[in-house]
Amino acid sequence: MGIFGTKEATGLRELFIAGLKDIYWAEEALVPALQEMQEKATEEELRTAIEEHVVETKNHIARLDEVFAKIGEKPEGKKCKAMEGILAEAEAVTDTAAEGVVRDAAIIACSQKVEHYEIASYGTLAAYARALGEQEIRKLLEETLAEEKETDQILTDIAESVINNEAAHKDLK
Amino acid sequence: MGIFGTKEATGLRELFIAGLKDIYWAEEALVPALQEMQEKATEEELRTAIEEHVVETKNHIARLDEVFAKIGEKPEGKKCKAMEGILAEAEAVTDTAAEGVVRDAAIIACSQKVEHYEIASYGTLAAYARALGEQEIRKLLEETLAEEKETDQILTDIAESVINNEAAHKDLK
Repeated sequence: MGIFGTKEATGLRELFIAGLKDIYWAEEALVPALQEMQEKATEEELRTAIEEHVVETKNHIARLDEVFAKIGEKPEGKKCKAMEGILAEAEAVTDTAAEGVVRDAAIIACSQKVEHYEIASYGTLAAYARALGEQEIRKLLEETLAEEKETDQILTDIAESVINNEAAHKDLK
Repeated sequence: MGIFGTKEATGLRELFIAGLKDIYWAEEALVPALQEMQEKATEEELRTAIEEHVVETKNHIARLDEVFAKIGEKPEGKKCKAMEGILAEAEAVTDTAAEGVVRDAAIIACSQKVEHYEIASYGTLAAYARALGEQEIRKLLEETLAEEKETDQILTDIAESVINNEAAHKDLK
């Protein structure tokens, strides 16, 4: 059974609602997953970045509530198999990486996969909102999109300024 | 059991190899999935874009073979739960969307999630290669990264120039 149950999506509006439910589930699954990653992280800068992103993620959920309200739909998540897979992989990868800088590198890699899933999702949803003439909703979704992109960039900066080089030196010991 | 089996990743090189195996599996799973999406697509421009990306994807696998050879490791995939989830979702979403422009919109959305997973993966792997002093490998990975980004942009252009607006009009009928 597909994301629409037995019902076909016959227009963009239905695809849009299905996409909102998918990312709503993903964002809700992300909150505890991020908190776990923060606990496993060592580098202070990384711990702070994740902590701030937990706050942002909760705000993204609140924004989705607002979007659902604007289109007159009940806020509701529908299991997002993609995010489920990304988070399962993140748990496996970070659990088997040695604590410290190597695990931090793994946490960043997995978090960037999460961010890119969200960038793709919100990018699509904002484009759908535009095509549907829903400008206020588009603006809300683009605000979240901008924050996901910023988080991705912050993670790149942390990896490239400290973590990766230190982790590479572990190989030489 | 994690991506390393029972073995811990104690340095960046091990994370790098694990990441290569993950994306190798993902790329190989992608070839038949893309072919299926192409068959389901209607718009000629989209069909062509997917067809071209199948050729590129096979080339990405060949490049990964080259990377494995350069580091003296056997080319080998390890199940990528994230890509597995993304592709399962893609199948469900595209199967329940009405054939034609609405299904095309769904195919683009799902393909962009695939592309973003790859952008995150190759971005990380290229950064790891740089930190490990493997400049030739970094160059190979960045070539693939550039192609994934280009494909993502092509899909955005197709969606925004034709598909989304047409699909939105289906709602008004």
